[in-house]
Formats: sequence, structure tokens, C-alpha cells
Amino acid sequence: MTDRRGIGIIGGVREMQEFSNGLRKEGKTIAFVPTMGALHEGHLSLMREGKRHGDVLVASVFVNPAQFGRNEDFNSYARDTDGDLRKMESAGVDIAFFPRADEIYPPGYETYVEVTELGKPLCGRFRPGHFRGVATVVLKLFNIVKPDTALFGQKDYQQLQIIRKMVSDLNLEVDIIGMPIVREESGLAMSSRNSYLSPEEREKAACLSLALRRIKKSFDEGERDSLALLREGYDVLAGASIGEVDYLEIRDGETLGDKAAASPGDVAALAVRIGNARLIDNTVL
Amino acid sequence: MTDRRGIGIIGGVREMQEFSNGLRKEGKTIAFVPTMGALHEGHLSLMREGKRHGDVLVASVFVNPAQFGRNEDFNSYARDTDGDLRKMESAGVDIAFFPRADEIYPPGYETYVEVTELGKPLCGRFRPGHFRGVATVVLKLFNIVKPDTALFGQKDYQQLQIIRKMVSDLNLEVDIIGMPIVREESGLAMSSRNSYLSPEEREKAACLSLALRRIKKSFDEGERDSLALLREGYDVLAGASIGEVDYLEIRDGETLGDKAAASPGDVAALAVRIGNARLIDNTVL
Repeated sequence: MTDRRGIGIIGGVREMQEFSNGLRKEGKTIAFVPTMGALHEGHLSLMREGKRHGDVLVASVFVNPAQFGRNEDFNSYARDTDGDLRKMESAGVDIAFFPRADEIYPPGYETYVEVTELGKPLCGRFRPGHFRGVATVVLKLFNIVKPDTALFGQKDYQQLQIIRKMVSDLNLEVDIIGMPIVREESGLAMSSRNSYLSPEEREKAACLSLALRRIKKSFDEGERDSLALLREGYDVLAGASIGEVDYLEIRDGETLGDKAAASPGDVAALAVRIGNARLIDNTVL
Repeated sequence: MTDRRGIGIIGGVREMQEFSNGLRKEGKTIAFVPTMGALHEGHLSLMREGKRHGDVLVASVFVNPAQFGRNEDFNSYARDTDGDLRKMESAGVDIAFFPRADEIYPPGYETYVEVTELGKPLCGRFRPGHFRGVATVVLKLFNIVKPDTALFGQKDYQQLQIIRKMVSDLNLEVDIIGMPIVREESGLAMSSRNSYLSPEEREKAACLSLALRRIKKSFDEGERDSLALLREGYDVLAGASIGEVDYLEIRDGETLGDKAAASPGDVAALAVRIGNARLIDNTVL
């Protein structure tokens, strides 16, 4: 482990496991925030909350190749190790874990975890293999870091539900905490991919949260018909000339099943493409 | 936990986890033998060896529905709880874990682990989904029992390699020990499925190990051509009028890849159908 001011840096899988084994032997609890780096306020809110849930707070930075499709942005995904370290330190992270891709996926790697049903709708339709890659790396990171608690953002709503389900199905003893979406002033949900947007596109992208707020307002006023709710959302997107909508749907908040009539706890979720960015957002009704 | 003479019996998943957490907190090590019951000398050899590898020896009995195909023998698979308990006790098992199927796979269960390449050849071709079911239940049992060491028989050679690979790929800290095949006097490998055989079929089934011994002898005498070696094995099977051979193959002992020329460490493996039984056996060259 390298110590850099107040933060310990671990790169090796075995070293991380031994460190965590040592903590557990001392009876200490571990809170964990897995990230792909390019940290923003959303990530930092997870870390600050994580601080309250464990004696030691571990955050990982790993841009996981297994969750990117062939034509997706793995190579262009933002990477900023120095900036990430400074931010982690300021958010109270004790251990920054930076595993290497060839240690996470050595030659001949071939074991994958799949949450079969929850991975099918929404982003699963547009990103085949994505959630298999997410579930696999999260399971591996859990086996390496051995957290008592792990924190994930609700912006990746489907991912959060898949991880919850995996943890329950595989009898993992990890408490999963989902944290509220952190937004810019315009309402745009914080995302590393916002950096792909030009200033004009960024302005346009504010309509994502606007569409979701419109749906939520209409739901709060009594509308329950999913199609009527979605039409209001589409009106907002069309008004901002968002042409490429992967989906805008209302689904059961837990099973992600179809809902013709919306009810409290359902989620309205969308994915759109603006310029080079594919952006997602959601709101719980 | 129910105590029955010298053996503790646990049925609940949470109870098992808490028991294992307690042991680990005390710094005790856990050895684990997962079985599907109908215990025979093969299983007992794993348990007796397991006794040497942990402070506490846990054995589970769970007939895993996820590893049986639709037309396979899940319903007729032998079950003998009382007999199994007696045998476990005599083999030195400290804790017998008998989970219920509806707790291992509650309604809505949907998370599966797959070792993609190792699961394809040999039995994988004839039992689609089988090794996915095996890998999934073994991972779950590991997460519940939390062993330091787990023991498996080499009779299920492909299963053993898949579990080794899963453990390595998923960063599980479990030592996997593969134990030699235990055979009846005739050479027939011990198997719960031998109980499906009539006395005549049982006699016939001795030719499986005979075919493998013939291959091994020829290999030891210098023959390296896989087809020539396999022909000798097929001669033995044909001589015993075994009509239904699922496969008889020579493969790399670790990757299970094809081998035109055999070399030390390769495995000769077969699966045949006799009466109502599908039997497997193998030998390492």
C-alpha cells in the first residue's frame, strides 16, 4: 500500500483481500463505493454517506471493460487518476483501490454472473451484455474488498436493482444502499458522460430531468395512465428536439415489469442520445 | 441447530451463515463437502480428508434442481436423510447442512453463474444448463458456509475444473481439493446413480473403468495418438455391448480443450447410458 497524505492506495487484488481480511479479523466494518472514476459530486455523495456506514471506507476506480459494448465509449471514457485521488481524499476515503484490468480479467477469464430477468428491459435492450459485465465485476469487487455495506447511485436505477437482486439471490452478506441522484442546477443528473456534451448540448440535456419532473407532477396530480404520463414526457423531449430516445418508460420499481397503470414506487426512466453522449435519468413516482 | 448425538444439524440459510460467521470470528477454519446425499464411500472419503483441513467440518446435502434437465432424474434421485446422517457422523462431520430448495431458490430467483468455455464440451453438450446450475449452487453454498477449503471428487472431473475456474475467476478465497475416484471391486466408480442398475447392468458397467484402464495402459506404453487410444476404449465398450455412448474423449486436463496427440496430465473421460442410468468416469493420463 502506498500512502499519499491521508489516503492509502492499493493496486493489487491479493493485497486488497489481505487488507480486508485483516480489518475483519479486528472486527472492523468496511463500507465500499465502487466507481469507474471521473468522479463527480454524485460519487462524492456516496463516499460521504459511506463514511457513516463503516469503520473503514474503501472506494475503487476501475473502468470495467466487460460492461462496455464493442461500439461503446470504453476507450474515450474519462480517466483522471490524480483528480480522483484528491476528490476521494476530500470525501474521507481511507483506501483507494485501483485494480489493473489484466488482474481483474486475466487471460482465459470466462466466469460471468447474470441476473436474467431484471437485465432484459430498459438499458438491457440497448446494451446487450452490459449488465452481465456490471454484475460480474461487482461480485468480484465484493469478493476482493469484502464490504459490509456498499453504496450505489440511483441514477443507474436498473443497475441498482440488479445488484440488490444478485446480492439477495447469491446470499451475499452486503447491505446495499441506494443514494439519491445528484443534479446540476439545470436539473441535469451528474454523470461522467456529461463531459462529452458541447455547451449547447448540455443546455438541451436539461430537458431529460424536465420530462421526468413533468411526468411526476402529472402523477402527483392524479394521472395514472402510463401512456398519458409518457406522452407528457415525450412532449418535453420533442420540444427540445431530442431526436434519439432509446426509451422512456414507466416500470415497477422493484421487478422492472411493465405497468399500464402507474402506482407509487414505480419508476419513470429514460435513455436518450445527445451528440456523442448516451444519457440516462429516472424518477421514482 | 439440532444436536443428534455427535453431529449438529442446520436447516436454515441464515442460521448456517451466522454459525460460520461465529467460527470465523473465533479464528476457526471451515472445511466443506457439498453433496446431493445418497452418500457412498466416495463422499465419505472427501469427508474424512476434509477433517484434516479445517477446525470444523461442514457437509451439505442438497439435491439441486437447477442442475437437472427437464427429462433427467431429479425426482427419482436417491434420498436417504437418516442413512446420510449416520454416515456423516461416522465420517466425522461436525455440521450437517440440509437447506430447503425453496430457501435456496425462492420465488423469483434469477441469478446464475456460468463458466462459459469449460462448460461447453463433454457433459456440457449433453446436459445443457447442468454446469450453470452446478456453478450457481456451489457459489451460493460457499457464500453461506464460508469455507476455507472445499473438497470435490474427481469422478466429476469437468465439474471440478469448472469450480476451480469459478473460484479463481471470481476471486473466492476457497482452497479446492480434488479427491481420487473411489471404486467398487469391479472397478465401477462409486455413484449414487449406480443404484439405478440391475445386477446384470451393474456387471456390464464394469467395462467403463476397463475401457479407461485400457486407454491408460496403452498411453503408458507409448501410444500418443488420441484416435488410436480412443479406439481401444471403444473396443472394450463394444465388447460389453454398451450401445449408448454419449462421449469417450481425450482432453486437456485443465482447459478441457481437444487433443489430437495425448500428453501426460490429459484426461480420458466418458459418459454412457446403461438402462436408466447415465454413468460417467475418467482417468488422468
